[in-house]
Amino acid sequence: MPQVAEIICVGTELLLGDILNSNAQFLAQELAKLGIAHYYQSVVGDNPERIIQVVRTACDRANLLIFTGGLGPTPDDLTHATLAACFGVGLVEHPEILEDIRRKFAERGREMTPNNRKQALLPEGAQVLTNSGGSAPGIIWQPRPDVTILTFPGVPAELKYMWRDVAVPYLRQAGWVQQTVYSRLLRFWGITESALATKVQPFFDLQNPTVAPYANLGEVKLRISALAESETAAQALIAPIEQQLLEIAGTDCYGADDDSLASVVGQLLQAVGATLAVAESCTGGGLGAMLTAIAGSSSYFWGGVISYDNSVKVGLLGVNPDDLAQFGAVSHPVAQQMAAGVRDRLQTTWGLSITGIAGPAGGSDEKPVGLVYIGLAGKMGVTSVEYRFGGGRGRDWVRHLSACSALDQLRRHLLSAKFSSSSDDRYP
Amino acid sequence: MPQVAEIICVGTELLLGDILNSNAQFLAQELAKLGIAHYYQSVVGDNPERIIQVVRTACDRANLLIFTGGLGPTPDDLTHATLAACFGVGLVEHPEILEDIRRKFAERGREMTPNNRKQALLPEGAQVLTNSGGSAPGIIWQPRPDVTILTFPGVPAELKYMWRDVAVPYLRQAGWVQQTVYSRLLRFWGITESALATKVQPFFDLQNPTVAPYANLGEVKLRISALAESETAAQALIAPIEQQLLEIAGTDCYGADDDSLASVVGQLLQAVGATLAVAESCTGGGLGAMLTAIAGSSSYFWGGVISYDNSVKVGLLGVNPDDLAQFGAVSHPVAQQMAAGVRDRLQTTWGLSITGIAGPAGGSDEKPVGLVYIGLAGKMGVTSVEYRFGGGRGRDWVRHLSACSALDQLRRHLLSAKFSSSSDDRYP
Repeated sequence: MPQVAEIICVGTELLLGDILNSNAQFLAQELAKLGIAHYYQSVVGDNPERIIQVVRTACDRANLLIFTGGLGPTPDDLTHATLAACFGVGLVEHPEILEDIRRKFAERGREMTPNNRKQALLPEGAQVLTNSGGSAPGIIWQPRPDVTILTFPGVPAELKYMWRDVAVPYLRQAGWVQQTVYSRLLRFWGITESALATKVQPFFDLQNPTVAPYANLGEVKLRISALAESETAAQALIAPIEQQLLEIAGTDCYGADDDSLASVVGQLLQAVGATLAVAESCTGGGLGAMLTAIAGSSSYFWGGVISYDNSVKVGLLGVNPDDLAQFGAVSHPVAQQMAAGVRDRLQTTWGLSITGIAGPAGGSDEKPVGLVYIGLAGKMGVTSVEYRFGGGRGRDWVRHLSACSALDQLRRHLLSAKFSSSSDDRYP
Repeated sequence: MPQVAEIICVGTELLLGDILNSNAQFLAQELAKLGIAHYYQSVVGDNPERIIQVVRTACDRANLLIFTGGLGPTPDDLTHATLAACFGVGLVEHPEILEDIRRKFAERGREMTPNNRKQALLPEGAQVLTNSGGSAPGIIWQPRPDVTILTFPGVPAELKYMWRDVAVPYLRQAGWVQQTVYSRLLRFWGITESALATKVQPFFDLQNPTVAPYANLGEVKLRISALAESETAAQALIAPIEQQLLEIAGTDCYGADDDSLASVVGQLLQAVGATLAVAESCTGGGLGAMLTAIAGSSSYFWGGVISYDNSVKVGLLGVNPDDLAQFGAVSHPVAQQMAAGVRDRLQTTWGLSITGIAGPAGGSDEKPVGLVYIGLAGKMGVTSVEYRFGGGRGRDWVRHLSACSALDQLRRHLLSAKFSSSSDDRYP
């Protein structure tokens, strides 16, 4: 049989629809990247007979079975015990796992429960697939020469680092990875998917590398994927296409792969030794949270003020109460005074502000839900931009787009300062 | 065979991980609500042989096969043709479908392509499952007395209204819906899944209602699900169990169903007309973002200070620089002064603060990554609590747990004030 994988997700919560099966998507993407074929995915509840049936079916059509879920401490976590039964072996207690679980509990000042003991029982002959973060380890096991089994917990974060840190190196070493799909994801902000697609249409007909568009939460992406025998060979296919796409897209492309608007802004600030403070109204801290999601952000992000109530805008940011009364909290003057105020109070190079109507209530004909002003203060003065995100997609959508657009405004400003390109000045 | 459904999602894009299988979750939730059992879900690519294999396996263990995907106009949309082949019948063109597709294209000012003609071909004997929005209709088909097949497009919005408008009425009329499952989800914070499982162990053996535990991002949940002939009857089964669980869990249970820590804290504050301000260091605005995710939070949340840099702790919150130097930013005294400072500056009933080490850098033996102090200031004075979340699960984990734990501290304090239960005072 050629080398074929199958993804098997165990958990009654999946059958009840309590959770979205994001683990299957993650594993599917990872298998595609490694060039490992997989033709089926199965979901089955926490039921030994049915898990066994799924394993038998999978063994007839695949030789790498990848399980998620059912490794926890509760009685319905049955994956390892069922796999042992399925291949006719017993369970063996691994003292080092028990010790590891005990240590992790102790680190958090908690006592291990008798339930956790179960997590140290693995099928006889299985290797431990270490879980450095959570309590449940997985296994790497070849119960028969033609079957390899990998198990992971259902917790997505644990699955992800166990996959990357342990499973991928194992699969490479065991000869599962022949040709690699290497991808480069270009990231765009401030342009719609259809506008970008129109600009780069001819690239969608390429065969190797391929170029495909995606859009999600206001962000547009282009994935360039090349199939090659080595990462270097794939990169040589991708690089010229990437270069052409970047020339077409200009500053609408803010980064690639793991970049985020916050990380790119951070790099631009750091490069010139600049610092940033934020003043947030409708986002309530979401912009600061995005900025500080980046490790090391303390070197350029000093903090800010969440001025949700107007009294905070006046008291902590020095917004003029008369302007608040005349123009309203959601207005150009207030956005500008918030940005200038926080820059002044925190003594940073830049002050960035957001004030808007996130909804669902609070909108009017003149100022509808989704109306947002972004203010930016620097040594050149203060400016602001109006956005209309609409109210149809809800409060979270408006807040997310507001924070991203604020970062994008600062990014474009930092870029245009960097290249001294006054012609691309988007500020009024 | 008892009446059992199976969900089969067709599409190579699912195997490539390009899309998340939200259709499976939607159908799973809907089947659970209707009390229709389903034990397996399968995902298969756009490949006739493999689709046939999945259909054969499913027919051995289920009698209601629900398909999504593969109904489009492109050559890789094969679901109907494959089903016809699988049950040995031909395809029949339905002129009324053709007419409907032509009309929909005309409405949008477009011309029908020859490809779309394929969408009017259905297996002989199948009824049309009308798609009022999109171009692709599904089918309702009994190819054998013991097998019923429903097909839907992969577009989630089309699936949803076709399910609700056509499929559910059909299933009711055809006798598939006898009993309804009604669920109640209890939500817990500040207790581990295994500790809670140990406390409520006997409940896991119940048959109707059932009780099952889940854990996700530090939160633990118990789902109580009852199968009954009406929602009222189900609720009568659930209520006494819920009561018993609440008595065992006490204040570790913070809410149910759509409640969040932020919404529960908001209700408690609102009930007594109290107001809140936050001072955030390692969360950088994440606590404020959680609080303001709740529509209407402006009536009790006034704002706060993101004091990421120590200069902001001193300048805007009045933290004593000597204490910063002596105890460090991540310490009881600084957490307390941040909470008191923001309460004082914003003139709110409560001040809530977070200071900690989110990592990955910045930890030491004495103060490891994951060490977090939560401060709470009120008219009774100031208090603080130390948490150790560990660094193994990363920066986002520490920040998320920090913000949730801060909300939980305030919640417990508001509750103990409400019940004047000084015996449950968790503050030092």
